Amino acid sequence: MIVRISIYTASLVAVPFAVRAQDAPVAGVNAATDSVFILNSLLFLVGGFLVFFMAAGFAMLEAGLVRSKNVTMQLTKNIALFSLASIFYYLIGYNLMYPLGDWMMDGVLSNIWGPAALEPVGPAVESLDDYSYASTGSDYFFQLMFCAATASIVSGAMAERIKLWPFLAFVVVLTSIIYPVQAAWKWGGGFLDAAGFLDFAGSTVVHSVGGWAALVGAIILGPRIGKFKNGKTVPMPGSNLALATLGTFILWLGWFGFNGGSQLAMGTVGDVADISRIFANTNAAAAGGAITALLLTQALYRKPDLTMALNGALAGLVSITAEPLFPTLGMATLIGGIGGAIVVVGVPLLDRVGIDDVVGAVPVHLFCGIWGTLAVVFTNPDATITAQIYGIVVVGAFVSIASAAMWMLLRHTIGIRVDAEDEITGLDMAELGMEAYPEFSKG
Amino acid sequence: MIVRISIYTASLVAVPFAVRAQDAPVAGVNAATDSVFILNSLLFLVGGFLVFFMAAGFAMLEAGLVRSKNVTMQLTKNIALFSLASIFYYLIGYNLMYPLGDWMMDGVLSNIWGPAALEPVGPAVESLDDYSYASTGSDYFFQLMFCAATASIVSGAMAERIKLWPFLAFVVVLTSIIYPVQAAWKWGGGFLDAAGFLDFAGSTVVHSVGGWAALVGAIILGPRIGKFKNGKTVPMPGSNLALATLGTFILWLGWFGFNGGSQLAMGTVGDVADISRIFANTNAAAAGGAITALLLTQALYRKPDLTMALNGALAGLVSITAEPLFPTLGMATLIGGIGGAIVVVGVPLLDRVGIDDVVGAVPVHLFCGIWGTLAVVFTNPDATITAQIYGIVVVGAFVSIASAAMWMLLRHTIGIRVDAEDEITGLDMAELGMEAYPEFSKG
Amino acid sequence: MIVRISIYTASLVAVPFAVRAQDAPVAGVNAATDSVFILNSLLFLVGGFLVFFMAAGFAMLEAGLVRSKNVTMQLTKNIALFSLASIFYYLIGYNLMYPLGDWMMDGVLSNIWGPAALEPVGPAVESLDDYSYASTGSDYFFQLMFCAATASIVSGAMAERIKLWPFLAFVVVLTSIIYPVQAAWKWGGGFLDAAGFLDFAGSTVVHSVGGWAALVGAIILGPRIGKFKNGKTVPMPGSNLALATLGTFILWLGWFGFNGGSQLAMGTVGDVADISRIFANTNAAAAGGAITALLLTQALYRKPDLTMALNGALAGLVSITAEPLFPTLGMATLIGGIGGAIVVVGVPLLDRVGIDDVVGAVPVHLFCGIWGTLAVVFTNPDATITAQIYGIVVVGAFVSIASAAMWMLLRHTIGIRVDAEDEITGLDMAELGMEAYPEFSKG
Repeated sequence: MIVRISIYTASLVAVPFAVRAQDAPVAGVNAATDSVFILNSLLFLVGGFLVFFMAAGFAMLEAGLVRSKNVTMQLTKNIALFSLASIFYYLIGYNLMYPLGDWMMDGVLSNIWGPAALEPVGPAVESLDDYSYASTGSDYFFQLMFCAATASIVSGAMAERIKLWPFLAFVVVLTSIIYPVQAAWKWGGGFLDAAGFLDFAGSTVVHSVGGWAALVGAIILGPRIGKFKNGKTVPMPGSNLALATLGTFILWLGWFGFNGGSQLAMGTVGDVADISRIFANTNAAAAGGAITALLLTQALYRKPDLTMALNGALAGLVSITAEPLFPTLGMATLIGGIGGAIVVVGVPLLDRVGIDDVVGAVPVHLFCGIWGTLAVVFTNPDATITAQIYGIVVVGAFVSIASAAMWMLLRHTIGIRVDAEDEITGLDMAELGMEAYPEFSKG
Repeated sequence: MIVRISIYTASLVAVPFAVRAQDAPVAGVNAATDSVFILNSLLFLVGGFLVFFMAAGFAMLEAGLVRSKNVTMQLTKNIALFSLASIFYYLIGYNLMYPLGDWMMDGVLSNIWGPAALEPVGPAVESLDDYSYASTGSDYFFQLMFCAATASIVSGAMAERIKLWPFLAFVVVLTSIIYPVQAAWKWGGGFLDAAGFLDFAGSTVVHSVGGWAALVGAIILGPRIGKFKNGKTVPMPGSNLALATLGTFILWLGWFGFNGGSQLAMGTVGDVADISRIFANTNAAAAGGAITALLLTQALYRKPDLTMALNGALAGLVSITAEPLFPTLGMATLIGGIGGAIVVVGVPLLDRVGIDDVVGAVPVHLFCGIWGTLAVVFTNPDATITAQIYGIVVVGAFVSIASAAMWMLLRHTIGIRVDAEDEITGLDMAELGMEAYPEFSKG
Repeated sequence: MIVRISIYTASLVAVPFAVRAQDAPVAGVNAATDSVFILNSLLFLVGGFLVFFMAAGFAMLEAGLVRSKNVTMQLTKNIALFSLASIFYYLIGYNLMYPLGDWMMDGVLSNIWGPAALEPVGPAVESLDDYSYASTGSDYFFQLMFCAATASIVSGAMAERIKLWPFLAFVVVLTSIIYPVQAAWKWGGGFLDAAGFLDFAGSTVVHSVGGWAALVGAIILGPRIGKFKNGKTVPMPGSNLALATLGTFILWLGWFGFNGGSQLAMGTVGDVADISRIFANTNAAAAGGAITALLLTQALYRKPDLTMALNGALAGLVSITAEPLFPTLGMATLIGGIGGAIVVVGVPLLDRVGIDDVVGAVPVHLFCGIWGTLAVVFTNPDATITAQIYGIVVVGAFVSIASAAMWMLLRHTIGIRVDAEDEITGLDMAELGMEAYPEFSKG
């Protein structure tokens, strides 16, 4: 059978690493190293496309939890924020994230504004950035998805009253500067990493960062009109719980890539065994969170609450993200379960203090991000509570202050909130002139 | 480019198997075995996340096929059943499934109640459970998803009138005991396996098990109010066929992992070639089932029926699951096509005998599960019709009796059916106080 | 831990390639070649299931963009067309596509009508079709998905007024003959390939083929009733933008398999590095397209347009498909961005000339397919503008003429368009007797 012809491939196929490896050894080239390189890169690619799909998960979750008059806007924000993250992490973020780590350690400020550059086409071993590890393109692809996920977290909390363009302006700053700078402190090998702060896949570096930005933004933006009346919280149910459930399942799926890919290597027996643990633990934590939330809402309110169960699953996932490797399955279920409980308590708590977080992003991503980061000390022998708290506080302070500054700047320039009339009409017709479900009568 | 630092990984990366393999040989350690271990584990992880996603597929399929007043409940059941399966397969099921096999064969009853335990973190080769095969975590992850899929099958048939908690209680028993015990008889190396019963990926062990539990449950539960009037079946159309279609496509996608992963190995040329056959055959069977159902409904009713086409695709998938490897593409299409015909005939047949299966789970998963198990004899030279019938009958008898006992117990204790008034109101408002589509007027 | 027993697998596991490789060398067999074979096949399988999922993406996109009275029909078309593609590419298309390439090159007409045949079960190395490359089953699976994607493109443009069976008849011809013949000219190693025409993953061979068939079909079919009134275009908004957005994200996800898998090999360091570039570039182009469409609609109409942003992302993806490897990330963003602009301009352009393309398939897949094919010359040093134009014109002429002939034949025999009354009622009730959202009142 003839297969599709690719002239770029043809020359490579003609000299597979296999053949090279059998021939006289070339200095620095061997089949075993090739194999590690390929498998590590493959992990980033598969992990990366799973995390990419989380963008769809966030979009569906949020579209399902807002009222139908704001669905088109929420969808628009989600596809736009992902696209902007792709552009600005490329232009600025990626190279800010890693060399900044160098800079923090070495005192050398270099190269921090260059856009990301990949390895050449059909690279010879000599032209690879790191032949002993993985392709730059796969690493870039994987890292980009984490940056974009951080931005996705913000959009839900501030839904139903924020203008499109100021929100997107914030996304640009978040993905090109705020996220990469703090990520460099840990994952770029910066001072938080040196201080022993542990965050395997980003309970703090991704989730609480998104959570802090969302919390600060929601406070500055203020609650939706009619959300709090005479000290009471008025329920504003989501318009489509099927979509919200779909979004949750998609996020759960993507999290296998998120946490599993963060092993950062699959070329050894030890690595793939660890990735396997991580997959199993990630699933266990989500299950623990969902069931705990379901049981708790039954106990507290006599009615099991689907949206709490969905957020409980996500809470479990966020909680295990700082350390998905070391826990046993039982411990992972427990860590996730506590995350689920935090959400059931956290959502009304935010309401009580008058903060309007439409989808529960702050309890899920911030509260559980903190919990998960602290919980590392229970299972990872290298973790210290002081280093964990240090990391949480430093990242929290930086992101809160930077986000607040940006939100205030936007508020006092172009404004961040739609008119009251537009908010009541709904952002879809007021801002976009397009309804998500134009034919379905509203009840 | 500096990449994300993982202190757990760092030490492993420093001594990749590649390097080990080149150095002085360590007893029992070599690069080739490493490679098989990694690729087999990778198959379980990728297959596992695909089967995981079937949970979303079942949720969307069922949410789309129930009436809008019961959608929140159906979604709640789906996320809860998956989470419970994750917890109870961990606590009981996994170790009941495999050592029970030992027990059945060896007469030794040992270790059957311990929760699942994974390999240590960053395992050395010596601490692996089976260095010549795959990581325990990846196997656990993959097997769990099959157990959860079995539970998903039940929820659709009994929709729109069963209470939440009794249903979930059944799920606990199903996933911790009923599924693992019978799975051990075949896949744990038990007496059905010894008897020559063949079931590659679970037409019987998964699908008909879910189907029997659903059939028995639906009979004991009784039909929905108004479903059968004066011997006539009253159509109760699903509320959202777009979701049902999405669910079908997701299930179809997940089935590549379900059947392909059941090759259980990807580390050799022969295995990956077989997985390739399985992917192609699985797809062919689904296509055959969908088209047959479409043509048959056109022929019988003068209108092609989308829900039959969707169930036809699923019927094709179930039918090929017992033997996705041996058939040619044409034979796979045919086996799936007969599955599609079975569904077109089976759905009204169930109606005629007064059994109310809301989503068609019994024709799809039970009838086609039986058909697929029998069809193994047409293509696999090792199959015998007696062994196949033996397996079908043994599993069917066990699951039916165990399920009936459990459903009767639940019925006579906490009760399994909602009040008539609540059923007419809809389970969402009556049991959960939350509508799936609160803003859309009902016609 | 005992794992699931598979008698087919058992014998293979007993003699993994790993062990063979250490033993006395067998002629033509070695571990390194095995490894390339496995990894190449794995690329096709993973790429293939991602492209498979695009079927769900198209279904959701189109279901979201048609009016609710035609949703069931659109879903039916999508599941049926994919199933028919699976059957007819198997029966005719696959072997027409490749040996035709031989025939074109060698002047030998042989074997062109046989159905696809896979390698034997558990193949020994000697029985593999191409031991130095990949399994036939994985190649077949991957290629089939491209053929099916081509058919999916057609269904959106002609929605809301075409009859089901004539549409499906066209799909049969498209997937068994039209697509494979022209694909053979390039990917079967035919005369377009010999002429230096470059099309990495199918901007022309897949997307513009679907686009030409759709354009010709939409012209012959005529616009929907009421679409153009007194020279003015009447907006007919899609019924469910959440589904349309979901479909776009699913397509975006699938495109990593579409373009990345088209590297056709993953067994070498160079290949996996190239796949990594392709993933990153594919994502960049989609982002560029979405943001450009969003900014342009804001600039032109003062309202950012979600459906344009969605189509902009798809436009970016189509645009990069002819050459996702050579561009830098910045160049990929730009190529995609121009695609996004083409869609914003192209949609009203089609309206102006009275062509009714319900979902924008022609601007996205045809216009951007042409643009992407031309854009290869900017980045790939082997590309020439004459060869690119030659390929575009030859494929365009062939597909347009063949499609027009087929559409005219269908029109003058069984007819392709529903009655005016049925069109106004909606195809769901008129043709299928089944609504997609039966309970939701229409506004």
